[in-house]
Amino acid sequence: MVSKMSQSEKAELFREMHRQPPIIRLCTIWDAASARIVEMAGAKAIATGSAGMDAALGYPDGELAPLDEVLWAVKRIVDRVDIPVTADIVAGYGKTPGEVAETARKLLATGAIGCNFEDSTGEGGGKLFTLDEQVARIKAVRKVADGAGIPFVLNARTDAFFSSQIPEDQRLDEAIRRANAYREAGSDCSLVLGARTPETIQRILNEVDGPLNVLASPASPTVPELEAMGVARVSVGGGPMFATLGLTRRIAGELFSDGTYDLIRDFALPRADIMSMYAEHD
Amino acid sequence: MVSKMSQSEKAELFREMHRQPPIIRLCTIWDAASARIVEMAGAKAIATGSAGMDAALGYPDGELAPLDEVLWAVKRIVDRVDIPVTADIVAGYGKTPGEVAETARKLLATGAIGCNFEDSTGEGGGKLFTLDEQVARIKAVRKVADGAGIPFVLNARTDAFFSSQIPEDQRLDEAIRRANAYREAGSDCSLVLGARTPETIQRILNEVDGPLNVLASPASPTVPELEAMGVARVSVGGGPMFATLGLTRRIAGELFSDGTYDLIRDFALPRADIMSMYAEHD
Repeated sequence: MVSKMSQSEKAELFREMHRQPPIIRLCTIWDAASARIVEMAGAKAIATGSAGMDAALGYPDGELAPLDEVLWAVKRIVDRVDIPVTADIVAGYGKTPGEVAETARKLLATGAIGCNFEDSTGEGGGKLFTLDEQVARIKAVRKVADGAGIPFVLNARTDAFFSSQIPEDQRLDEAIRRANAYREAGSDCSLVLGARTPETIQRILNEVDGPLNVLASPASPTVPELEAMGVARVSVGGGPMFATLGLTRRIAGELFSDGTYDLIRDFALPRADIMSMYAEHD
Repeated sequence: MVSKMSQSEKAELFREMHRQPPIIRLCTIWDAASARIVEMAGAKAIATGSAGMDAALGYPDGELAPLDEVLWAVKRIVDRVDIPVTADIVAGYGKTPGEVAETARKLLATGAIGCNFEDSTGEGGGKLFTLDEQVARIKAVRKVADGAGIPFVLNARTDAFFSSQIPEDQRLDEAIRRANAYREAGSDCSLVLGARTPETIQRILNEVDGPLNVLASPASPTVPELEAMGVARVSVGGGPMFATLGLTRRIAGELFSDGTYDLIRDFALPRADIMSMYAEHD
């Protein structure tokens, strides 16, 4: 049974999934309930997304949700699902390698087996940590995981595509340069934010060493197309959470105008499914 | 501005809404994000529902979510919206009047201005507190609120309709008897679980003193119909939350099968709406 796997075994299983097809399909979630629903729908792994999780916790995106609240939510998810859980820790809730290492230690204590870790400073204007800074920060996270004996899967995200510090025609080159440097520093997978067209994704696949994670939006190539190109994993960011907020708004609009319950009738899971969500954890 | 209202003023405002039409439309929510979306959709008040909130927190329904986690979630919601918030505290997380009073004190400290409070013991089989026990428990909650000087809105729910302790043909009579006794003990509004048909609702309206809350399901009369009958408030329980889980399951199913993002595209709120959710709380 998967539920009997140790943290280390879950990490190794998730790491192994990156080595060959099929592509890893991550239906990014934000709380315990969405994690269980996605697991019950057949997910092989669970990924949290900061945009959705922060919104659910009551904060705007970008490390404004306190780390202890985020880690509490991550631990709750890890405790409720049997499959590997990778968590979005934004830019590591710290500047220095030492601060980021402390975040990594706390994250490992939740039972998570991987993370998304980005190079935006969060200071606005698309400001990035320098390449040397981010390399040192990635090495710090890697060292903590190695020290704990967990084959932790570090998904290094670069936001070079959106950095106003970099001339527009050099952003893709810089993203590729950074992804490779992060890989050499110890990342296991690369995520280039803003890589949407097949041409861009193909160039990154050609020039970046190791597995690639595409953060898909509705305009992205389909999962089978990404898989055929050689993308190792696909995630969907805040998409599912923001879709549920869109449905919530429509449900409220229906209740406040016509005063009917059609959307609840059309979408609500049967009570038996709700009852079974945490049946093993009663 | 509503945001400048004190807890006492919010309680008085909510209490006042029960005194005459229009009917209070409560699109029951479960976390900070759903509360804000419903407020932004035009809600006059916010009601939490235990079924949805417990699921979001990672627990089955029925006081299995620890009280401190529930109250943390309620406080987060109160802190994020400007309108009155009433919270579902199930059966008060305690048996004795003293225990329930302690729960009421903690709930008042979150800034909530009302609660749903039921007479099920949670021991299964539809077991209810005796009428005398529940009357004493309601008096204890009322006393705490009065002592704090908050015109707290106590919505007393009776589950007599689902009690296997009561012969089926006597359940409606018992529900009416209990609702009136609870009203006399200090409740402000009555909720008879299972009152779905117009005939049953009408009889309760005729025989129960004070405002009535109908917990609507898709099979219930519409809100305008309930309003025309004289119902004071309508809520929708776990419906909206379970609908979002249904959408999440469909989104995951689409990602795991065709590998497309159509449901995310069709339902996701625009990024600007997400950004504005907590704009005042940055």
